[in-house]
Amino acid sequence: MYNFIFQNTTRIYFGENQLGHLGEELKQYGTRVLLTYGGGSIKRISLYDKVMEELKKAGLSVFELSGIEPNPRHTTVNKGAELCKKENIDVLLAVGGGSTIDCTKVIAAATFYEGDSWDLMTHKAPVTKALPVLTVLTLSATGSEMDSGGVISNLDTNEKYGLLHPLLQPKVSFLDPASTYSVSAFQTACGSADILSHVFDVFYFTFAEKMDMIDRVMEEVIKTVVKYAPIAVKGPENYEARANLMWASSWALNGFLQTGVIQAASCHAMEHELSAFYDITHGLGLAILTPRWMEYILDESTAPQFKKFGVHVFGVDAALSDMEGAKRTIACLSDFLFKELGLQSTLTEINIDDTNFKVMAKKACGGDVLQGFKPLTPEDVENIFRMCL
Amino acid sequence: MYNFIFQNTTRIYFGENQLGHLGEELKQYGTRVLLTYGGGSIKRISLYDKVMEELKKAGLSVFELSGIEPNPRHTTVNKGAELCKKENIDVLLAVGGGSTIDCTKVIAAATFYEGDSWDLMTHKAPVTKALPVLTVLTLSATGSEMDSGGVISNLDTNEKYGLLHPLLQPKVSFLDPASTYSVSAFQTACGSADILSHVFDVFYFTFAEKMDMIDRVMEEVIKTVVKYAPIAVKGPENYEARANLMWASSWALNGFLQTGVIQAASCHAMEHELSAFYDITHGLGLAILTPRWMEYILDESTAPQFKKFGVHVFGVDAALSDMEGAKRTIACLSDFLFKELGLQSTLTEINIDDTNFKVMAKKACGGDVLQGFKPLTPEDVENIFRMCL
Repeated sequence: MYNFIFQNTTRIYFGENQLGHLGEELKQYGTRVLLTYGGGSIKRISLYDKVMEELKKAGLSVFELSGIEPNPRHTTVNKGAELCKKENIDVLLAVGGGSTIDCTKVIAAATFYEGDSWDLMTHKAPVTKALPVLTVLTLSATGSEMDSGGVISNLDTNEKYGLLHPLLQPKVSFLDPASTYSVSAFQTACGSADILSHVFDVFYFTFAEKMDMIDRVMEEVIKTVVKYAPIAVKGPENYEARANLMWASSWALNGFLQTGVIQAASCHAMEHELSAFYDITHGLGLAILTPRWMEYILDESTAPQFKKFGVHVFGVDAALSDMEGAKRTIACLSDFLFKELGLQSTLTEINIDDTNFKVMAKKACGGDVLQGFKPLTPEDVENIFRMCL
Repeated sequence: MYNFIFQNTTRIYFGENQLGHLGEELKQYGTRVLLTYGGGSIKRISLYDKVMEELKKAGLSVFELSGIEPNPRHTTVNKGAELCKKENIDVLLAVGGGSTIDCTKVIAAATFYEGDSWDLMTHKAPVTKALPVLTVLTLSATGSEMDSGGVISNLDTNEKYGLLHPLLQPKVSFLDPASTYSVSAFQTACGSADILSHVFDVFYFTFAEKMDMIDRVMEEVIKTVVKYAPIAVKGPENYEARANLMWASSWALNGFLQTGVIQAASCHAMEHELSAFYDITHGLGLAILTPRWMEYILDESTAPQFKKFGVHVFGVDAALSDMEGAKRTIACLSDFLFKELGLQSTLTEINIDDTNFKVMAKKACGGDVLQGFKPLTPEDVENIFRMCL
């Protein structure tokens, strides 16, 4: 009961104008830096120039890996690891969102492995060592800036796996809410759905005994996102909203809310199949799946927890029966995701049909049963996918 | 706005039967261990035997410093530092509550200073290096198990100061709620008052802008303590209550609730004078002071925050005016501390009169003004002390 180990060593510089510390932090780990980023948005918002200026000021040798994809590929990891070996890189600096950071973390480990990096993702080979990773965050979503995980996709096999290892924990992360001003309404909404899902899919909806304090804090993190996501969607340069979302993204998945809880993430497992097959935005997949998953597993055993969630977060009437309260909660969550945040509400709208549902469902269950608030068979998962059409 | 640096590196082993990890953790830092503890309660609850067994199993050389006082003395720090030098100690293991841990942290730093350890407390000499400290916690109160501070008293000068330095951060802390079963009702109540005070005195009551998420989480930590302290007072072997109080004690002061907040702790500063002069239990002094401090600074500017606190934590009627709501809140807090937890409500009851109030008030203000929710002059502080008679 409640036994756990907690440690999170990442140093966070939060707020505006903190990049002045970037040089001194990097230099602790060496002089040869690989700067990693995605499609170039960091150039549009001049963050690239600001980072380069700090690196130059610190006298560091800078190499670059650009073009890291959303849903980053194992082939990109391989490319990055090759570069690290060839250029004797000392330290990695990821500037971007969760995809760039995840990819960079796995590059850090793959640098010390001689084969295909996919072997690390499938646990064919263990992580033995990793280069230090620092990050400059530009999207509030995955929590990768303050956790020890990375998710990588293999488009050859339509697989998407997560790797978790203490060596992947970023040494330092820079969180400037203003760096997320240019994030589109769509990506802000997807990121917010991801944060929410980290709390309620991974930790909050469970029959396992939780520590009361943690349950309460989870609800407040959820309420923070529900309050500020619509504000940031409508007013992208609202610092208060961006700041709350950013700090919520880090705390949703940095281990604190996991203390004393048994982790089981049904929606995350199902969504990984969607983005592995169709390369969609993770948060969007989660948003479409979650209310259907809740509806599918709704029964007398799950209703009380769903209702509790609705009462605390959406102000659902506590006097309703568990079942009525749970139904009202699911309706409120759907309204929030699809009306207030404006996300697409069906897979059909994003051009996904049922062609691969059977094989995706089987994969999501790992050939067996998908654990979670309710165990799901491949047939269950297929049914949930169909409800999303 | 909201700029901060956050890092907390302590590894926590939480729950029952985690001491099996003690040997492996200590051995990372060397083989010669100084075990520090207080008056022997750890022998009464057999924790001493369990710890010694693990140390023996790990083949470590163990030295001992016992008799660390509540409100630990700088003379004890000096004694401990001498022992570390003489025996070439590699690592310190504090088994006890906040006093033992605080004292051990300062011993760790004083080992590398040639003069009187009090020089470190008065900043006459800087902390340059410190032995690693691990802890086994036996009292939920100070948060010292997961922060980088230590408070030491000098009975020669009636002074009590805190020292804060990253090198004082414990490497590892073992938190077993069952190790607090034997804590008396009185000490449980005092510890709980200390946790509460860490949240509302240090961070919650402020005019400074706070991040909404942090404000919400503070309220939930407070509610956790208000819920579980009476349960633990009445039922000392209630694991759920002990676990929630223990984890709350660590999170009240480990930096998270401080993110983006300007710290100003009026009651803590005033209480340090009480325990420096009269050697009383810190949490008791805080409990007696806090409602009087609230009453003294209550005006139109402070009332809304006091009322908000009462509405969220004690269910005070939100429809009341700010002033009426604040008064009701102060009454609820007094009832909680003095009726529900059964703490003494006046200084008179613990044999403190006004003899030293003038000099204590002057010291609390550092010869100037005591910053906080409202700045306090020495005259203000003296008035507050008098309200506690």
